[in-house]
Amino acid sequence: MHHVEQAVEYLHNRRQALIDSWLEFVRIPSVSAQSEHAGDMAAATGWLEQRLARSGFDCQVHQTAGHPALLARWCELPKAPTVLIYGHYDVQPPGDEGLWDSPPFEPTVRDGAVFGRGAADDKGQLLTMVAAVEAWHAVAGALPVNVKFLLEGEEEIGSPNLPSLIESHQEELACDVVLICDTAAFAPGTPAITYGTKGLVYKEVTLIGPDRDLHSGSFGGTVANPANVLAEVIASLTDGDGRVTIPGFYDDVQPLGDAERKSLAALDFDEAAYLATLGSPALTGEAGYTTLQRRWARPTLDVNGLSAGYQGQGASTIIPARATAKISMRLVPQQDPEAISASFDRLVRQVCGDRVRVQIAEHGLCRAYMAPLDSQWMAAARRALEAGFGQKPALIREGGTLPILPTFKEMLGADCLLLGFCRPDCNAHGPNEFFHIEDFLAGAVTGAHLLAELV
Amino acid sequence: MHHVEQAVEYLHNRRQALIDSWLEFVRIPSVSAQSEHAGDMAAATGWLEQRLARSGFDCQVHQTAGHPALLARWCELPKAPTVLIYGHYDVQPPGDEGLWDSPPFEPTVRDGAVFGRGAADDKGQLLTMVAAVEAWHAVAGALPVNVKFLLEGEEEIGSPNLPSLIESHQEELACDVVLICDTAAFAPGTPAITYGTKGLVYKEVTLIGPDRDLHSGSFGGTVANPANVLAEVIASLTDGDGRVTIPGFYDDVQPLGDAERKSLAALDFDEAAYLATLGSPALTGEAGYTTLQRRWARPTLDVNGLSAGYQGQGASTIIPARATAKISMRLVPQQDPEAISASFDRLVRQVCGDRVRVQIAEHGLCRAYMAPLDSQWMAAARRALEAGFGQKPALIREGGTLPILPTFKEMLGADCLLLGFCRPDCNAHGPNEFFHIEDFLAGAVTGAHLLAELV
Repeated sequence: MHHVEQAVEYLHNRRQALIDSWLEFVRIPSVSAQSEHAGDMAAATGWLEQRLARSGFDCQVHQTAGHPALLARWCELPKAPTVLIYGHYDVQPPGDEGLWDSPPFEPTVRDGAVFGRGAADDKGQLLTMVAAVEAWHAVAGALPVNVKFLLEGEEEIGSPNLPSLIESHQEELACDVVLICDTAAFAPGTPAITYGTKGLVYKEVTLIGPDRDLHSGSFGGTVANPANVLAEVIASLTDGDGRVTIPGFYDDVQPLGDAERKSLAALDFDEAAYLATLGSPALTGEAGYTTLQRRWARPTLDVNGLSAGYQGQGASTIIPARATAKISMRLVPQQDPEAISASFDRLVRQVCGDRVRVQIAEHGLCRAYMAPLDSQWMAAARRALEAGFGQKPALIREGGTLPILPTFKEMLGADCLLLGFCRPDCNAHGPNEFFHIEDFLAGAVTGAHLLAELV
Repeated sequence: MHHVEQAVEYLHNRRQALIDSWLEFVRIPSVSAQSEHAGDMAAATGWLEQRLARSGFDCQVHQTAGHPALLARWCELPKAPTVLIYGHYDVQPPGDEGLWDSPPFEPTVRDGAVFGRGAADDKGQLLTMVAAVEAWHAVAGALPVNVKFLLEGEEEIGSPNLPSLIESHQEELACDVVLICDTAAFAPGTPAITYGTKGLVYKEVTLIGPDRDLHSGSFGGTVANPANVLAEVIASLTDGDGRVTIPGFYDDVQPLGDAERKSLAALDFDEAAYLATLGSPALTGEAGYTTLQRRWARPTLDVNGLSAGYQGQGASTIIPARATAKISMRLVPQQDPEAISASFDRLVRQVCGDRVRVQIAEHGLCRAYMAPLDSQWMAAARRALEAGFGQKPALIREGGTLPILPTFKEMLGADCLLLGFCRPDCNAHGPNEFFHIEDFLAGAVTGAHLLAELV
């Protein structure tokens, strides 16, 4: 019997112990957003430290300006590749506990799943990899590749201290590939490799007209109304085909390759079911593209918030003194957030002219990320997932933004493998978050295979 | 000496008594918006009733669903014309009393003016006409024309009960002309006749997309964003020349006549000073018209409020489930509010298509009003104002909406004369409302002349 088969058998034999330790980890209410949980953040870090130390890892807890991060390393194979496993032990606040069927921090097994805050995101998913290294350590006394864990406690609050931690520890974090289990499967039973995420440009535009709200009867028609101008600005950012009209916006956008086009089309994606989960009256978007292409492979522009004038019941006849819009753009690979941000500003100011005063704030700027599909790491991950789940993984992209991915690429020179095991409807940030036990175990088995495949 | 000269002399001799009674009236805190002032509303009605009864008026207090209205009549000249004087004894709430230099309901004389809530709007201005009838009654024992007063207590809350009161008392209110002193002078020392007011169509448009706020990364680009569509809708309502693009909007708009064009151009209107009072960066509006033409004689469209998605600090990356705009149009004579309202709805629904669900509410619908400039009443008012102020009045329009004017025209068949004595910066709804004593007295003298001129 090969070591990998022994490791898999070990995981199956330890099923109950793995579940028990998973429940124990979820019981720690490590909510990064709430300062009263500072002690729980330390407890979660210590819990992981003890656990990995038992498998021979060299552990260092790094204090940051916020919550601590754990760096755990097993690097005893000078000639073997090194994988850096990134995860986070912090969780979202539970929200309204009345909406939970069982308490968020008293994890409960039912219907074959663990329910609790962090059951999936990311405690459950990161534990699959902890279980995998434990299995290898137990059956072989060693791992097939060098493994480093970087487990932070601020992911749910935007990882404010992570980039500087990575920058100042590039040598300790040096690796050939980064592994992250913090995305979802494509569908129940079908795990996913997410190979691309979108970038972000987030702007807040405030237009200022009169120095106070004016009577719209007495003064209407003689000065620009900031709310009308704001609507004009927003409307000018896209055209009737759903394309963004900011000059240069598409300059660096690469057309979708044939292979990816076919791969997306081959996914078992039900448009009607997708629409039904959103509740919108219709699917619509950039002309000439499918829903999945629009969602994952085309840049977008959305108004995230509007605010002006009278918002109460009934009527108030005013010209608002100011009007504000929050507007975000999601970018695809090669698009330059800084150039697009500057072009956005120029267009906004051009549309406004001297009719109103213009203030523009920036709340986010991040490049898209795309992993190469033909790397040895990608091939290893596909084999490992097929071994773990008995089914080929779906290769997908994500419309959201993960700033950590370009950061790893820039600072460590390594690409990321994003493996997702939990179901896409796992309520990651909502009430009744869950993760099916069979998916959890298949994830751990995938991890055991992956360590062997990365060699 | 003619009676009118005696009446004027009487007013001058009674100067202090008139001021004293004006102060007494302002001391009654008859705030219609605040239910704790119900007793004060009755007190103000009673005060007016006693005062007019002393000059031979037949007084009836009409209880309404809200505050009482006083109808006082002196109709002893079967062959003479009848003037209906409309005014209101209720006042705006004082607002933040800390912003007042003297208490709002302890009227104070300083710098030649009375300061207090209602000093001008409308207690002071309506008292000028009470003083005028008193003077005639004192010197001649009779008035030169029949006079009716309709003094209500709900003007500042939108006159909810006035139309039904007028409708059910058309005979008692029958008249040849309506006189209203509830607008302002054009400039210090230059009284005004406001001969036109704009109509109103007020709409609230709510666009509904997904059934909850969606992650703009995960779902952006695949469904319509209600806030983006709302901007498109608003932008589609006007063109680059500041013209409204609602089909049929201008169909009934009459071009400005040469006489009125010249009359507006002749007004001593300082654009730079006007702009400075508003604080906007620039004057702008419908191409081809002057600022005063835009303000008074051209229809307009203004967004009064916008609301959608995230309005807090910083960033939230959502597609808002819904977006709302309050949008009002000011109409000029001949425009049909109902037709424009319906055309607005059609255009909004057409722009939206089936991308979002559309809800449209209506918060106001009123025709514009325009008094004939060549009537005998208008001629009488011009002569009376010149006699009262020693200066020709400015003939102006108002961009605001006075629903009572078309109501009088429709129900009583009478046109309205709007005479304004108080300064345009009299802080009618703000702190430190005032009315200069000389303007008040000139208004009363104007009233004494007007009664003679209307014969």
